[in-house]
Amino acid sequence: MAAPVVAVVGGGQLARMMAPAATALGVHLRALVEDATSSAAQVIPDAPVGAARDEAALRALVAGSSGPAAGRPADVLTFEHEQVPNALLEQLAREGHAVRPSAAALVHAQDKIVMRRRLTELGVPCPRWAELPDLAALETFLVAVGGTAVVKTARGGYDGKGVRVVHSAEDVADWFESSYGPDGTGIPLLVEEKVPFTRELAVLVARRPSGQVRAWPVVESVQVDGVCAEVIAPAPGLAPEVARAATSLAVTIAAGLGVTGVLAVELFEVPGDGGGPPTVVVNELAMRPHNSGHWTIEGSVTSQFEQHLRAVLDLPLGQTSARQPWAVMANVLGSGHAELTDALAAVTALDAGAKVQLYGKSVRPGRKLGHVTVLGDDLVEVRARAQAAAAILAG
Amino acid sequence: MAAPVVAVVGGGQLARMMAPAATALGVHLRALVEDATSSAAQVIPDAPVGAARDEAALRALVAGSSGPAAGRPADVLTFEHEQVPNALLEQLAREGHAVRPSAAALVHAQDKIVMRRRLTELGVPCPRWAELPDLAALETFLVAVGGTAVVKTARGGYDGKGVRVVHSAEDVADWFESSYGPDGTGIPLLVEEKVPFTRELAVLVARRPSGQVRAWPVVESVQVDGVCAEVIAPAPGLAPEVARAATSLAVTIAAGLGVTGVLAVELFEVPGDGGGPPTVVVNELAMRPHNSGHWTIEGSVTSQFEQHLRAVLDLPLGQTSARQPWAVMANVLGSGHAELTDALAAVTALDAGAKVQLYGKSVRPGRKLGHVTVLGDDLVEVRARAQAAAAILAG
Repeated sequence: MAAPVVAVVGGGQLARMMAPAATALGVHLRALVEDATSSAAQVIPDAPVGAARDEAALRALVAGSSGPAAGRPADVLTFEHEQVPNALLEQLAREGHAVRPSAAALVHAQDKIVMRRRLTELGVPCPRWAELPDLAALETFLVAVGGTAVVKTARGGYDGKGVRVVHSAEDVADWFESSYGPDGTGIPLLVEEKVPFTRELAVLVARRPSGQVRAWPVVESVQVDGVCAEVIAPAPGLAPEVARAATSLAVTIAAGLGVTGVLAVELFEVPGDGGGPPTVVVNELAMRPHNSGHWTIEGSVTSQFEQHLRAVLDLPLGQTSARQPWAVMANVLGSGHAELTDALAAVTALDAGAKVQLYGKSVRPGRKLGHVTVLGDDLVEVRARAQAAAAILAG
Repeated sequence: MAAPVVAVVGGGQLARMMAPAATALGVHLRALVEDATSSAAQVIPDAPVGAARDEAALRALVAGSSGPAAGRPADVLTFEHEQVPNALLEQLAREGHAVRPSAAALVHAQDKIVMRRRLTELGVPCPRWAELPDLAALETFLVAVGGTAVVKTARGGYDGKGVRVVHSAEDVADWFESSYGPDGTGIPLLVEEKVPFTRELAVLVARRPSGQVRAWPVVESVQVDGVCAEVIAPAPGLAPEVARAATSLAVTIAAGLGVTGVLAVELFEVPGDGGGPPTVVVNELAMRPHNSGHWTIEGSVTSQFEQHLRAVLDLPLGQTSARQPWAVMANVLGSGHAELTDALAAVTALDAGAKVQLYGKSVRPGRKLGHVTVLGDDLVEVRARAQAAAAILAG
């Protein structure tokens, strides 16, 4: 039997970082990339150019219409982002193609209203929330939660986009003009209470079609302006019962939604009532390798990228334990360098043990261009080192 | 400045395993591969097909005549094997191209007579040895060493090929027929004493053009029929003074020969005289990532593949400490499976913590098809796990 073929939709850094894992496993990776110079296309020989929403491109990706493995259909179709056309995925599944995660699972990472409804059904703690058919519904909700809330577009938001903190309905009146969604996109809106969280956590799990699930240690995700800046693994000082609860939630969600592949559950940690232990509520879901799991490349026995490939190929999952007591990952968001590689000499001179991952992307303000991971025994030192190395790359 | 371009000669598993390191550093890797389906070509988008001894192919590789980075000349030319034409490398260096290691260094990994002469000059302990201009010279040597010796071709040997243990000159008379070398190839022969070694060790170091050198822990290399079957890092029970001596030898050789990139020094450990500590003598050299360093992919802070790229780009070298007390790498030499990926489910089911590297090569008896690395605290367990996982892949 020839080596398995995994087709991935998307040419960003997540598909790029699947490549080393595929290389190790001897798995053939085929990526549908936005552009021949995309992050993933630089390191994946089989990288047809096309749009994720183009049926012909998606069918060619699955069939293997061209490239170095032409004629070898994909054993499984997977994704590095959620901007994919579900009706087409359903059609491909009906035709016998393995689509993992399935369209039925993926919709929960695409549509926040669908996600909130389903999580509520599963008994998973969420912020108070409501759909927003009109401004009056928002006014009612604001009164109920005490005057401040977060309005979100149900679809299309990421890294803080499509999210607005509001104190009155007027703050988001522009999104209601002509139709819902920013710029009259017609995307439905929902509102959530502004959770009084102490910090953000994330749990990553992977699940096989056969049902096996493995979770990595719960991490703390440090956000700046709605974008992940830093991840600390494990989350410092996390109460064991909170870690267990968070992991259990993620497993419940993965099974309840029928997720296959990696699932990232972003959580708010909130103080417990009356001095009790803190609790967690679900913020967002992603069904793919996720920024909160980049530390696993060096920090865990099995990286999220290898695990995603194993999960979607229905191979037994790998160990998810940490290799060292602490791992800190710091993102490089924008850079003063013309190219990040211009800073390679400086960053390697600064810290001989920092692990650098550059994404091969052109520099733009705030763009995720790379990250640094440092492992070690002393959190304060590890964190300072990761931040210092990322700062060098950021120029 | 655009990302650095590293051109590597060769399309085998060593070039293949450079790809993930290049991906992480954002370095553009271009490999001259034997065939479009070569191990490295499967995972490197910029992989022109050509022979290492073809001047036009080598010049096109350096110039970037085609492919996804056409027009971008290589910042450095390096190698995954030693079968390269030195005169041409010297010419390229004269024309201003960075060739690392240089032809002047590389010749010591290509010609065992040149290597023995130079190491002897440097005061590096070697087996007793002699050039063999004729059978009479061999007869004289055999008498001097007590009747058993090892005849080698000066060039072209690897993995036990071009090596013969002899007890009399007649045992290798066929190599002298018509001219030297097996099959009348005209390759000069040398003879070495059969060292009464207790085991084989290897030291890997990397050296930058600026002179910085870093060494990994000394490992034990377990050979079967002249081929590396297993590597244990660090070498169990190695006396600290022997480890220091071995490392010091490797650093001396790297500096003395002007090596840039990774240097592997294969050593024999021999019992000390009169109950003194063991000593080491040099067996072979390789100037590239080496089988004895595959454990560094997961087992060390910096893998030999990343370090080789850093060294040839004259970037500061990374830490070479081990991530866990023990690492064992077991090679997969041949397989009863049609494709090694057929055994992925079985090997991942057997051991969720074993790290598998498959090379994408077609199965042939005894061929290096992949390897498994296991890390841990208990050597007996780690070794048993690595061997068991490799056995599953070997079918």
